[in-house]
Amino acid sequence: MRCYNYAAMERIFEADSVVIVGISERPGNLGLNVLQNLIDWEYGGTVYCVNPRGGEALGYPLYASVSDLPEAPDLALLIIPAPAVPGVVEECGRKGITRLAIPAGGFEEFGGGEGARLRGELVAAARRHGIRFVGPNCLTAINAHTGMCLPFVPVPPEIPRGGVSIIAQSGGIGLDFLARLKDDNTGFAKFISVGNKTDLDEADYLEYMGRDPRSEVICMYLEDVARGRELLEAARAIDKPILAYKANVESLTRESARSHTAALANDDAVLDGAFRQAGIMRVDRLAQLAGYAKVFSLPPLRGNRVALVSPTGGILVLASDQCARRGFEFPPLPASLVEDIRAHLRAGVIDISNPVDLGDVHDADARAYIIDRLLGQDFIDGVIMLLIARISGGKRMAGNIRGLNKNILPELGAMIKRHGKPLVFSLLSTSEVRLETRRTVDFPIFNDAEEAVDAASVLRDHSLRSKRR
Amino acid sequence: MRCYNYAAMERIFEADSVVIVGISERPGNLGLNVLQNLIDWEYGGTVYCVNPRGGEALGYPLYASVSDLPEAPDLALLIIPAPAVPGVVEECGRKGITRLAIPAGGFEEFGGGEGARLRGELVAAARRHGIRFVGPNCLTAINAHTGMCLPFVPVPPEIPRGGVSIIAQSGGIGLDFLARLKDDNTGFAKFISVGNKTDLDEADYLEYMGRDPRSEVICMYLEDVARGRELLEAARAIDKPILAYKANVESLTRESARSHTAALANDDAVLDGAFRQAGIMRVDRLAQLAGYAKVFSLPPLRGNRVALVSPTGGILVLASDQCARRGFEFPPLPASLVEDIRAHLRAGVIDISNPVDLGDVHDADARAYIIDRLLGQDFIDGVIMLLIARISGGKRMAGNIRGLNKNILPELGAMIKRHGKPLVFSLLSTSEVRLETRRTVDFPIFNDAEEAVDAASVLRDHSLRSKRR
Repeated sequence: MRCYNYAAMERIFEADSVVIVGISERPGNLGLNVLQNLIDWEYGGTVYCVNPRGGEALGYPLYASVSDLPEAPDLALLIIPAPAVPGVVEECGRKGITRLAIPAGGFEEFGGGEGARLRGELVAAARRHGIRFVGPNCLTAINAHTGMCLPFVPVPPEIPRGGVSIIAQSGGIGLDFLARLKDDNTGFAKFISVGNKTDLDEADYLEYMGRDPRSEVICMYLEDVARGRELLEAARAIDKPILAYKANVESLTRESARSHTAALANDDAVLDGAFRQAGIMRVDRLAQLAGYAKVFSLPPLRGNRVALVSPTGGILVLASDQCARRGFEFPPLPASLVEDIRAHLRAGVIDISNPVDLGDVHDADARAYIIDRLLGQDFIDGVIMLLIARISGGKRMAGNIRGLNKNILPELGAMIKRHGKPLVFSLLSTSEVRLETRRTVDFPIFNDAEEAVDAASVLRDHSLRSKRR
Repeated sequence: MRCYNYAAMERIFEADSVVIVGISERPGNLGLNVLQNLIDWEYGGTVYCVNPRGGEALGYPLYASVSDLPEAPDLALLIIPAPAVPGVVEECGRKGITRLAIPAGGFEEFGGGEGARLRGELVAAARRHGIRFVGPNCLTAINAHTGMCLPFVPVPPEIPRGGVSIIAQSGGIGLDFLARLKDDNTGFAKFISVGNKTDLDEADYLEYMGRDPRSEVICMYLEDVARGRELLEAARAIDKPILAYKANVESLTRESARSHTAALANDDAVLDGAFRQAGIMRVDRLAQLAGYAKVFSLPPLRGNRVALVSPTGGILVLASDQCARRGFEFPPLPASLVEDIRAHLRAGVIDISNPVDLGDVHDADARAYIIDRLLGQDFIDGVIMLLIARISGGKRMAGNIRGLNKNILPELGAMIKRHGKPLVFSLLSTSEVRLETRRTVDFPIFNDAEEAVDAASVLRDHSLRSKRR
């Protein structure tokens, strides 16, 4: 039985000092990427560098060994080949460094006797000194808020800081997740690539992120689950949204997963039910992890009663389909509200009902008025709004919204705050237009109608389950 | 029973001359948007403009009526309100104009007696003169290759020309489809927004596009099907890929669809089976229409035997899952091939099997060699390759592919042609990196692993069904 300790785990993620062991200025040295990441991400802690040959790297002096360091840093990152790992772990232990991150592959995942032997030596050395470690065989950790960016591949820092954290059993998929956050202009908190999880595993990380105040939404990419009971217990104790993609569900892939991180596939159907009971929202496409995470920056959606609004009839039709699949209802609008809206509109509009077809409402202020009134109704839990924007940003395409005389998006953002209800907004357009538009608003923009409706259902599921809300 | 006539339909899509009725230089005039579209798209035919008040628009003289035109143009676009339509149709008939496109709403879709009466008058006037028409209540047509861009909203011309056509029962969704083609750098051929389909309907358009040499892939967005038997007959006679999104499948939406284009929902389950038998590939998300259309620029995928290749273990795992769901198999690689690959690689690679983990192959030429050899094997029908690219295009991010010393994408494009087999390629990254990369290659790039595998399965389904291939 592992002994969980928040403070101990925090020493990894919130380390005030880090030593990179194995860094040199030789071209292609992976430690150099880590140091560059720390510089690019503006890490505020102390950074030490170790290489037996001495010299310097990017202006940092290279200590000959960890025992030569002036202090025992909070965390040591060992950018060294697997066979050298157990010896350096021993050295770290003697120095009093008790938290490590180990990227190297070449342990039990290779299947041979040598890898298993190295694993044994690593575990023994760690136990001798009370060391806890991340990995091996992974990209290790990022804390976006402190700038502690430890992966050995360049990770550009242009991702907004925020509340979304990721636990990834594949470093590559974790990096793809960060790319999606950047694409969506979604705020990022912490990243952990779990690797072989010889010591710390996804249950530990989940428990930590559950208590970590910076992690507001937790996403997981899992290939297997090492300690199912502990993972589910951790999830049950967490009131934050938890989204999980569980790969490796088909028999064909078990071979492939084993070679990747020595993982074993789990029984998919059992896991599905267990996840649901523990409040883990399972997604079935990788893109949904980041896609749904952003919905949680909206206020809670406390029920199924939505207004569905679009100026495009076709989008209303297909979004209605999707709403029906996700259990949403469209409360009819009372005559008094319809009367108010009609009175407010310049042109006579033939039909106002829910779903709300804005096809005849070409005035931006009138559209904003309608959304405001809808959000203000007691019998409406939230609004789903679906727009199609023009194809390109050319000179005849002024404004983000087709046919409108002004951009009402900032007003919509203010309404969300004022009413404390979600406006789940999708913009069908090119990625260029969406990228531009995302930079101008402080609420999430979904890529299409189906994604918006699905995300709204995930928000609802969590809002109804959450005790705090 | 309608009498189909390819030449007659071609006169609409390949019109050598067009008259815009109802254009003026008044700001906000929708006919002006059409004229600007024709200019922007470099329409090569003759354009006439008609307005009773005379004057000119963008330098084009305004004739007082269609009867004043020096000839009877191939096509008349009536940018006038519904009540004026029957009279102008009569006038067109007398002039000898027998093909019309009618954008105006305000006919039977409004539900009142007035709209139904106007519909009756429109149909009667058309019958008197043997007129066939597009609409009403729609964005009408685009022929990308001739530049005949008739929608009354600005449609930027920066979409590559090519072979993908769209039949859309919602103009807005049709425009969103064009935005997606642009995003994907996919070539576009013809667009038709069907509207109320009072005369020509989706069966007519499908039959036409089936014979149209420019339309190589046909996509449909349908809310209802007016003449199911004829649509299915048309589909069965077509050997091109046909992709369809059929909305309005849930009961909740029937109300919504009726108000949109006076359509009635059809029985979904029956339609599903009928579509399959007729070779129409049904998609369940709108984004898949454009997403899958681009796969048909690849050579056919003549079977289930694929090689799955990625440098990222996690992506291999989840793509293997998706391959299993879609019925793909991973033939084992014979020892002689494995030996050749090993001999070619600089570093010793521990394990080469299918799925192929390129994690240890950091040399670009070695990766290209592996893909080339895989495509060259008789027992492999195609290759699915999955990459994760760096997050941004900063100075440390040279090259499109993480960790590679050169960009092998152009070589991969040449291999596809040389082997006559598909390489279905996905690039997980930000939209910015994907947009950049798409401009440099002549094969499709999918957004994620699941989309690539799904698209490969659609390509396989069509390749196995197609008689020609």
